[in-house]
Amino acid sequence: MTISDILLSNLDENGILRLTLNDVSRRNALSEAMLTELGDAFTDAGANPKVRVIVLAAKGPAFCAGHDLKEMTAGRLHEDGGKAYFAKVMAMCAGVMQGIVNCPKPVIAEVTGVATAAGCQLVASCDLAIAADTAQFSTPGVHIGLFCSTPMVALSRNVADKHAMEMLLTGDMTSAERAAEIGLVNRVAAPEVLQEKTMEVARKIASKSSMTLATGKSAYYAQREMALSDAYDYASGVMVDNMLALDAEEGIGAFIEKRAPKWRDA
Amino acid sequence: MTISDILLSNLDENGILRLTLNDVSRRNALSEAMLTELGDAFTDAGANPKVRVIVLAAKGPAFCAGHDLKEMTAGRLHEDGGKAYFAKVMAMCAGVMQGIVNCPKPVIAEVTGVATAAGCQLVASCDLAIAADTAQFSTPGVHIGLFCSTPMVALSRNVADKHAMEMLLTGDMTSAERAAEIGLVNRVAAPEVLQEKTMEVARKIASKSSMTLATGKSAYYAQREMALSDAYDYASGVMVDNMLALDAEEGIGAFIEKRAPKWRDA
Amino acid sequence: MTISDILLSNLDENGILRLTLNDVSRRNALSEAMLTELGDAFTDAGANPKVRVIVLAAKGPAFCAGHDLKEMTAGRLHEDGGKAYFAKVMAMCAGVMQGIVNCPKPVIAEVTGVATAAGCQLVASCDLAIAADTAQFSTPGVHIGLFCSTPMVALSRNVADKHAMEMLLTGDMTSAERAAEIGLVNRVAAPEVLQEKTMEVARKIASKSSMTLATGKSAYYAQREMALSDAYDYASGVMVDNMLALDAEEGIGAFIEKRAPKWRDA
Repeated sequence: MTISDILLSNLDENGILRLTLNDVSRRNALSEAMLTELGDAFTDAGANPKVRVIVLAAKGPAFCAGHDLKEMTAGRLHEDGGKAYFAKVMAMCAGVMQGIVNCPKPVIAEVTGVATAAGCQLVASCDLAIAADTAQFSTPGVHIGLFCSTPMVALSRNVADKHAMEMLLTGDMTSAERAAEIGLVNRVAAPEVLQEKTMEVARKIASKSSMTLATGKSAYYAQREMALSDAYDYASGVMVDNMLALDAEEGIGAFIEKRAPKWRDA
Repeated sequence: MTISDILLSNLDENGILRLTLNDVSRRNALSEAMLTELGDAFTDAGANPKVRVIVLAAKGPAFCAGHDLKEMTAGRLHEDGGKAYFAKVMAMCAGVMQGIVNCPKPVIAEVTGVATAAGCQLVASCDLAIAADTAQFSTPGVHIGLFCSTPMVALSRNVADKHAMEMLLTGDMTSAERAAEIGLVNRVAAPEVLQEKTMEVARKIASKSSMTLATGKSAYYAQREMALSDAYDYASGVMVDNMLALDAEEGIGAFIEKRAPKWRDA
Repeated sequence: MTISDILLSNLDENGILRLTLNDVSRRNALSEAMLTELGDAFTDAGANPKVRVIVLAAKGPAFCAGHDLKEMTAGRLHEDGGKAYFAKVMAMCAGVMQGIVNCPKPVIAEVTGVATAAGCQLVASCDLAIAADTAQFSTPGVHIGLFCSTPMVALSRNVADKHAMEMLLTGDMTSAERAAEIGLVNRVAAPEVLQEKTMEVARKIASKSSMTLATGKSAYYAQREMALSDAYDYASGVMVDNMLALDAEEGIGAFIEKRAPKWRDA
C-alpha cells in the first residue's frame, strides 16, 4: 500500500502502519504536497480499524528538514507579498502536527537522520520517539531570520524551558544522546538496529486493545491542559467508561483467570 | 498508634508520622477499606499539630498494586453493571491522591517494592519520593484493557510527556534508577539504607516551622497552575503574609543574630 | 558605561551587554537599590538597539544571596509592622524577574558562585544559564521560617515538581552539576573558562537578527501558557508576520543563495 511517491505507506500483519517520508532530494521537506499527504495519512489511519500503531520513518540522511523554503520564497511573488500563502501553509502544518496528537492511534517517530525546524517539531509531536545515535535535532530558524515559533510549541511541551531556549536561541544541533537526556526522544539505538528496536515497541503496543489505547491517548493530552482537580474529575469519568467497555471486562477477567486477553477489535 | 491492621501508623518524637501500607497478601491494593484508611489518615495528620512530616511506606514486595481488581470486578454484579460503584471508587481514589497534595504536611514516599497503576500514582502524588534501587514502577493498565487514565494525571505532572507516554502505552516496568532520571522519584538508595535515608530527609524537614511548610506547600501547587504574572501576584502576597508571621520574624532574627531559631509550634 | 557602583555595565562591540552584580560585601543581595538598578538596566537594555544579548554576571563568592534581610527586618519598625514595605519590595522583585522574561533581548546568567533564594530565582528567570562547576543553588527560606514562595514561581517553571520540592522543603544546596541535570542551568564549565564559554554562546546569539530574537523570545513565553490549539493559532500568526519581515526575507534569501545574511539592525 503506497499513498504516493513522497510518502510511502505499509501496513503489516500486526496492524503497524509504517509511513516513510520519501522526498530524499528535498530532505523530506514539508512541502505543500508532503503536508497534504501526511495530513491525509494520519486522518485515514485514525479511521482505519486495521491500523493499531503508526511508525513515522524517513529515507535519506535527513529525517525532515522542515518547511520547503524555496516554495515559501516563491509565495512572496503573490500580490500580498505572500501573507495569505504563508498563513495557509502554517495552518496546514499546525493541522498535521495536531493531527498526530489527536490521532487515536499511538505514533512513534523512528528518527534516522537530521530533524530540523518543523522536522524537529514532527518528532516532538509524536507520542514516542526513538532515534539513531547518529541522529541530530535543531530549531535553526534564527540562522535565517525566521524564529522557529511553531516548532517551539511542540518542543516546549517536550523539554524544559532552558533546554528549549538553548536550541531556539542558538540554532545549534543537539545530538541524539542529548535529545534523550532532555526528553525530546525516549531513547537512542545504533542505526543498524533502530528499526528493529522501534518495531519491538510498536508490536508491544499493537498487542493492546485499540479502544483502550485510543481512550488513553486522547485523555492524556486533554487532562494535560487542565487544573489538577478538573483533570481528576475528567479522568475519573474516563476510567468509569473504560471499566464498562468490553475490552476492560475481558482484560481484567483474563488477568484474574491468568490467561491471555482476547480484544474485541483484534 | 495504629489506625488499623491494613494501615499501620506511628508518630515519632520528631513529629514524623510513618504510615505503612500493610495489606501484604493483597499487594497493598487500594481496596475500598484501604482508600478509606488512607484518606482518613491524611486528613487527621493534616489537622494534628504534632505531625510535622509524613512518610508513606509499605510492607511486602509490592509498595502498592493499585486498585483491587477483584473488588472492582465484583462491582459488575450491580444492576447498572457497576457504573455507580466504579464512579464511587474512582472518586474515593482521586480524593485520597488530592488529599496528599492538599495535606499541609510534606509527604515523602519511601518505596521499597513495586508500585503499579494507582500505586505508581500514589508515589507521583507525594511531594518527595525515595526508592530502593530494587523498586519498580509501571502503569500497566493497557495489559488488561483499562488505560491508567487517573494514574497518568499524577504521572504527567511529574515527568516529561514522552516518558509518561512510554510507561502508559507499553505498560513496561521502569527501574528505580530510570524513575530517578525522569523525575518520578528524587533519588534511589540501597534497600538496607532506604529507611535511614528517608528518615534523614524527613527529620531535616521536620526541624522547620510547620506553619512555614504548610504555607509553602499549599502555595507551590496553587501557583503551578497559574499564568506567570498571576503566579507572581499570588506568591508575592503569600510572602508578605509569611513575613508578618511570628516564625519568620523569629527565623530571620535568629539568622541575623547567628543563633538557632525557636519555632512557635515546635 | 557604568550604571552605578553596585551594578556594573559594559556593552562590547558585539552588542553584548554585561551586567555585573557588584555589591560583594552584601553578597549581591537584592536590596531596594539593587532591585532599582536591575529593573532600570533591563528596561534600558530592552529599548537600546545597540544591545543584542545580555549576560548577567556577579563579582565575589556569592552570585546573589536573595533579599536583603537586614533591610527587610528594618521594615518591621513601620507602624503596620512592615506590611506595606514588604509588599513594595516583593512587587519590585517580581517586577525585575518578569522584566527579564519580558525583555526582548535574550538574557544569559553566568553563575560563578552561590545563588540562593531570590538569587536562585534570578538564575531561573534568565533564558539561559551557564554555571561554574563550583556554583551552588538553594532556596533556603525554610531555614528562617520564610518559605521561598516567590523564588519557586521561577524554579517550578524550570525543573520537575519533585526536584523543586526537594530544594524548597529541605533548603539544601544543589550542586552545579545536579542543577544541570534537573534543568535549572544549561551546562557547567570550569570556573576559569566560564566567562569564555558564556561569551561564546552570547556571541553566537548576538550574530542573529535582533528582530527575530525579540519575536521568538516573546512568543515563547506567551505560547507556553496556552492550550495546544491556541498556542498553534498564535504561533502560526507570529510565523506569518516573521516571514513578512525584512530580516526573514534576507535570511532565507541568503540561505538559498549560500551567502551570509546581513541583518537590518546589525
